Amino acid sequence: MEVKLHEFEKIYGDANKAAEARRQYLEKVTGVKLENIGKTVIDLNTVVGRNIENVIGAVQVPVGVAGPLLIHGDYARGQFYIPLATTEGALVASVNRGAKLITESGGARAKVLRDGMARAPLFRLPSLIDAVEFVQWINQNVEEIKKAAESTTSIGRLREIQPYVVGNYVWLRMVFFTGDAMGMNMVTIASDAAARYIQERFPKAKLVALSGNLCVDKKANAVNFLLGRGKTVVAEAVIKREILQRMGVTPEEVHEVNIRKNLLGSALAHSYGFNAHFANIVAAVFIATGQDVAQVVESSMGITSTEAREEGLYISVFLPSLEVGTVGGGTRLPTQREALELLGVAGSGNPPGTNALKFAEIIAAAVLAGEANLLIALARNELASAHERLGRAKR
Amino acid sequence: MEVKLHEFEKIYGDANKAAEARRQYLEKVTGVKLENIGKTVIDLNTVVGRNIENVIGAVQVPVGVAGPLLIHGDYARGQFYIPLATTEGALVASVNRGAKLITESGGARAKVLRDGMARAPLFRLPSLIDAVEFVQWINQNVEEIKKAAESTTSIGRLREIQPYVVGNYVWLRMVFFTGDAMGMNMVTIASDAAARYIQERFPKAKLVALSGNLCVDKKANAVNFLLGRGKTVVAEAVIKREILQRMGVTPEEVHEVNIRKNLLGSALAHSYGFNAHFANIVAAVFIATGQDVAQVVESSMGITSTEAREEGLYISVFLPSLEVGTVGGGTRLPTQREALELLGVAGSGNPPGTNALKFAEIIAAAVLAGEANLLIALARNELASAHERLGRAKR
Amino acid sequence: MEVKLHEFEKIYGDANKAAEARRQYLEKVTGVKLENIGKTVIDLNTVVGRNIENVIGAVQVPVGVAGPLLIHGDYARGQFYIPLATTEGALVASVNRGAKLITESGGARAKVLRDGMARAPLFRLPSLIDAVEFVQWINQNVEEIKKAAESTTSIGRLREIQPYVVGNYVWLRMVFFTGDAMGMNMVTIASDAAARYIQERFPKAKLVALSGNLCVDKKANAVNFLLGRGKTVVAEAVIKREILQRMGVTPEEVHEVNIRKNLLGSALAHSYGFNAHFANIVAAVFIATGQDVAQVVESSMGITSTEAREEGLYISVFLPSLEVGTVGGGTRLPTQREALELLGVAGSGNPPGTNALKFAEIIAAAVLAGEANLLIALARNELASAHERLGRAKR
Amino acid sequence: MEVKLHEFEKIYGDANKAAEARRQYLEKVTGVKLENIGKTVIDLNTVVGRNIENVIGAVQVPVGVAGPLLIHGDYARGQFYIPLATTEGALVASVNRGAKLITESGGARAKVLRDGMARAPLFRLPSLIDAVEFVQWINQNVEEIKKAAESTTSIGRLREIQPYVVGNYVWLRMVFFTGDAMGMNMVTIASDAAARYIQERFPKAKLVALSGNLCVDKKANAVNFLLGRGKTVVAEAVIKREILQRMGVTPEEVHEVNIRKNLLGSALAHSYGFNAHFANIVAAVFIATGQDVAQVVESSMGITSTEAREEGLYISVFLPSLEVGTVGGGTRLPTQREALELLGVAGSGNPPGTNALKFAEIIAAAVLAGEANLLIALARNELASAHERLGRAKR
Repeated sequence: MEVKLHEFEKIYGDANKAAEARRQYLEKVTGVKLENIGKTVIDLNTVVGRNIENVIGAVQVPVGVAGPLLIHGDYARGQFYIPLATTEGALVASVNRGAKLITESGGARAKVLRDGMARAPLFRLPSLIDAVEFVQWINQNVEEIKKAAESTTSIGRLREIQPYVVGNYVWLRMVFFTGDAMGMNMVTIASDAAARYIQERFPKAKLVALSGNLCVDKKANAVNFLLGRGKTVVAEAVIKREILQRMGVTPEEVHEVNIRKNLLGSALAHSYGFNAHFANIVAAVFIATGQDVAQVVESSMGITSTEAREEGLYISVFLPSLEVGTVGGGTRLPTQREALELLGVAGSGNPPGTNALKFAEIIAAAVLAGEANLLIALARNELASAHERLGRAKR
Repeated sequence: MEVKLHEFEKIYGDANKAAEARRQYLEKVTGVKLENIGKTVIDLNTVVGRNIENVIGAVQVPVGVAGPLLIHGDYARGQFYIPLATTEGALVASVNRGAKLITESGGARAKVLRDGMARAPLFRLPSLIDAVEFVQWINQNVEEIKKAAESTTSIGRLREIQPYVVGNYVWLRMVFFTGDAMGMNMVTIASDAAARYIQERFPKAKLVALSGNLCVDKKANAVNFLLGRGKTVVAEAVIKREILQRMGVTPEEVHEVNIRKNLLGSALAHSYGFNAHFANIVAAVFIATGQDVAQVVESSMGITSTEAREEGLYISVFLPSLEVGTVGGGTRLPTQREALELLGVAGSGNPPGTNALKFAEIIAAAVLAGEANLLIALARNELASAHERLGRAKR
Repeated sequence: MEVKLHEFEKIYGDANKAAEARRQYLEKVTGVKLENIGKTVIDLNTVVGRNIENVIGAVQVPVGVAGPLLIHGDYARGQFYIPLATTEGALVASVNRGAKLITESGGARAKVLRDGMARAPLFRLPSLIDAVEFVQWINQNVEEIKKAAESTTSIGRLREIQPYVVGNYVWLRMVFFTGDAMGMNMVTIASDAAARYIQERFPKAKLVALSGNLCVDKKANAVNFLLGRGKTVVAEAVIKREILQRMGVTPEEVHEVNIRKNLLGSALAHSYGFNAHFANIVAAVFIATGQDVAQVVESSMGITSTEAREEGLYISVFLPSLEVGTVGGGTRLPTQREALELLGVAGSGNPPGTNALKFAEIIAAAVLAGEANLLIALARNELASAHERLGRAKR
Repeated sequence: MEVKLHEFEKIYGDANKAAEARRQYLEKVTGVKLENIGKTVIDLNTVVGRNIENVIGAVQVPVGVAGPLLIHGDYARGQFYIPLATTEGALVASVNRGAKLITESGGARAKVLRDGMARAPLFRLPSLIDAVEFVQWINQNVEEIKKAAESTTSIGRLREIQPYVVGNYVWLRMVFFTGDAMGMNMVTIASDAAARYIQERFPKAKLVALSGNLCVDKKANAVNFLLGRGKTVVAEAVIKREILQRMGVTPEEVHEVNIRKNLLGSALAHSYGFNAHFANIVAAVFIATGQDVAQVVESSMGITSTEAREEGLYISVFLPSLEVGTVGGGTRLPTQREALELLGVAGSGNPPGTNALKFAEIIAAAVLAGEANLLIALARNELASAHERLGRAKR
């Protein structure tokens, strides 16, 4: 008789017991002990059917804090300790030192420039003529489509439909306000309702795929890079010349590293990352706070821009597609919720959406800290030594 | 008196106590309880100075398993249960169903095409003429540079130096064999030694940055996409027509979704992801097994290619830059190690490097399973319903 | 005494004589005879000060015609003979055969989806906060900026200002209606006036460059690919199955070549050209009709999409950034004007702009013909033989 | 009775008469006079069957010269007058002024870093396993494949085969030495012979397309950007500070424009052109000298890098994929040959290949001149005024 691992919840009536039985089964089949994975603060009944299937326990990732980091945002105001979940030695220390430099220099400014989660269903029409007619029909029926989409959500609001035509194929990139949720599921369900409505009323349009890869979810791409997805956010600071001098570098030297590495090097690599290591900070915050970690891919796209000024090093980071939420996803899990609370952004904001905006500003400022520090480290030529000291031993 | 959080280890003489003191400090400053983050199976003394700084505890991420997945690789042979750490409902179920379809159809084939970790120090020369001379000198002195680089590592081997010249700037992209380690730190330290040697012998060359963004680490980019970094790996399967028919779809329909979404849609988005959701599977395995999660960015680049054949749906996945290790990084942590053991790839392989190769094959096969299932789901138009059922409730 | 070649017009009082003197000077200095370059139908007095400086004569490029090509556009209706200036053997024949296949199959449909020429001045602000304020100010003063911009042109109309913020830098991508002119000069002058007005009223904004490379002129890029520049145009046709069968191929085979070459191959190459050879046709028409040939770079970006249908091969071409005009530039030159007249699009349309739209439809249809034919040739494996027969001899 | 335009040569026995008859036919059908197109110095018998089909005459494009430009290349040494065929007012003047600045500052250095023309046939294999086996077989049989390829050419030499595997598809990017020819036709024919040989000996490999879009011809792409095609060439100069000061700008100001426009702006645009206007110069030289103008697309990719030095503005241009020849194509046409002679690069070099190398150095230096001048013009904010003065009148 075949064992169906996914039916254990039904059999055992309790997710924790089901997980235990699964571990026992796997231990029997593979001979591997899974005792640590079994030891978790998560009541698995709260995640099964929401966050995970075939659950066997949890993985534990070390969390450190960087800070305090002084931020002057529209929503994030004051000093913050940034929780970072990582196993890469030297990362927390790097953000921490960057935070110190920025805070001593007067803090970071941060702003969300754009906000909207997108899903782009893809339709096939018989011909180009029909495709163009279809787009015209869509433009004339935005209100009805909006109604259909929003019938599935109490918070989501369809803000815009961006149509793209290639021959007889049409993508409708639907951009939603999603409150404090990152919103991917919300807009998937809403787009599905919209797509059903559209197909009913415009029967020539046949849905090829509810996601036509122009959304764009979890791939580096030019659409999000230029038009944004989630939060488009910018942060900046001026790190004082005397502080840098104390470290043995000048603003001019750090600026030079940024031009040659982050601009020239990334130009040659034809990269979406004109930065030193946005992904490190984004990933560490995402894991710590229960975000959708696969979205690090596009959330870490962006540009670091610097200027050598008389007063010091001007540095800004631009993250066009930072996809974050403070409700939904893994944000309710015991440890992740604490990490969000540490930042003062757990749960719904008042008004809704403001917690997620505050969170985005904090992340951008943290990215700024990490970026500033790594550029300075490179200018001082201390990258390898930091990893030798704080990373792994000689292998 | 200023509290210096990073000195707590020194003060308390024990990392667990230092973490507790840090939590207490943060609780006092922010008014937030951090009790769950404090409950961890990790002895923090084993991670401080290696994996993390300013540690306060750990975050816990639910882990589920997908499988069994039958794999015919050069190293991975047999049935595997894939550990996936995620909070995105429906993801484990998706890979699980894909694994079932593939296993019933005879399994997945997988192969590593290329293997090598890269670091690209960037040098400035006075002029183009000097830059060209420098490259010639490098080519004539590879053996000495190799010796300098390898003096820092017992396992790493410098396999190739790829020079790139833009005006008076030269990147030396050094590609290393790194055994079972992902190897980023190993090659950073080795490249540093090589760069020091080079500067000494060719004084006109001035190191601008030990990493010149042509490595390329943690950014989507064309260099890794074309030349590889970490493992370049491919997996394929033929999912039987009758199995698909049972699900109400044909190979032709799934093939069509792949063409229009993954090729046409991603072409329009100018993406590095000609796939549906590689990043989901890569991220979930990376978190579960202690990989460097920021490297999901380039590790999830790639292409899904399909054919509608008489016998069924041919599907392959191509991951040019999958960066993984079975030693180092977070692989020794209690829960992560169990996840690696579950796959039979914990620690060093025999000979060294074979565990990492086996691991890469397994991930590629798991990505194949996830990809196959999502394309089928889209062809059946069940994406939204899966998220409604297994994801979050209406918000 | 130094000869100043650019002063010959002043010295000789006549451009033809100045050109002759320049040729004589060059012949003396280099020992090279320039007699053919001197033989031209162009009265050089009509081009000096408008199209060229330091003129010495003209180069002559062979022109062939492909057609008749039946087009059903919104503006282009009927049969057209396409003038193609090229020295690449087999190109005219290729478009010609494609035109024949399409015309026999009922013709090509074509549509312009979008129309607008862009220039993006780049401003520096003291800080991010100022940058955001600047964008708000711009949005509130669009009418005044529009007035300033349009004061320089009787035809150009500023339709939209798209702001992009990266740190303290702001690009204002200004999109203009330019009538029948390609419009690059028109919008450069208008943007200059707008930029002057803006700087006067918002003194914190300092113009860094009138073109900030987000326009984007003469580079392959994602901005034009997604948002368009010049004309965004699509053309399509269904080439009948029986016609293909006569040639020994099926729609399925040609479709397969398109998927593997134009989609899969270009995906791997990370290209902006998901097509076989748009650039060949675009370049040949541009030279023949006096367009700005450097703009072939972005005008040839685009995607070929196909379907194997029961009735035959469905094929469409998508050109997001086709930059063309029927007035201005080289369109008034004697031979170029004849080429435009051959297409019925010389000079201003009625109403203005319609000639350029018609011209764009024709080019898209010609690109479709060339593309269809090359895909069929590849499916028949006749590429090399065509070049052997019609191209150059064995070398 | 249907008129078959392409049979006129057969009917009239002379290409000039055939062209006249075609013009008469077109004049009758369209009512358009084609008298200027008919007036050409080209004996059409020399181009029919080589460069063009359905020929009706020639188009005439004004040619100006920029120079003298002092070049210190490996092959190009001395002062050169650059022939530029264009209808864009101000372009020749721009290159001319740049040439003057560079020449006065001591001239430009130029070097070809790499040389090779590529064609990448695409094969389908039954499975990934077969694909990998196929690549192994190719690597073991390079000598035989080389022999097959080179049997079709007396000059071409197959230097390298770069294999790329995606699932069951394999591209073999074959890189050839092609002497003084640009070589596209040469390598197409040679690759065809190689592909036939390969299919015969490895019957599981089925040729999908002789060009699989990884060559890459006439599309902007990462393969050529990183690995080169045609000539990879770099040029540099230092423009003296006092010369710039005379013009009212400093090296620092011009450097700043380069960073913000060419690096930051192009980063945001995700462009393959980190430059101001390479395409302008490349296109104008290509038209003047009988190159394949559609190849401007990839030949104009590249990066401008600057430094503000004490002695002046250091500027370099990097063109990874400049595809040029001095034999074949349109190089033999009367006017084009004169333009090549003006540069001292007409026909075959001694040894073969050196004329093309010299030509590539000259173009790179001319691009440098154009680029330097435009950056200076932007720094002086004179772009619009130049176009107003030298371009078209107010419209």
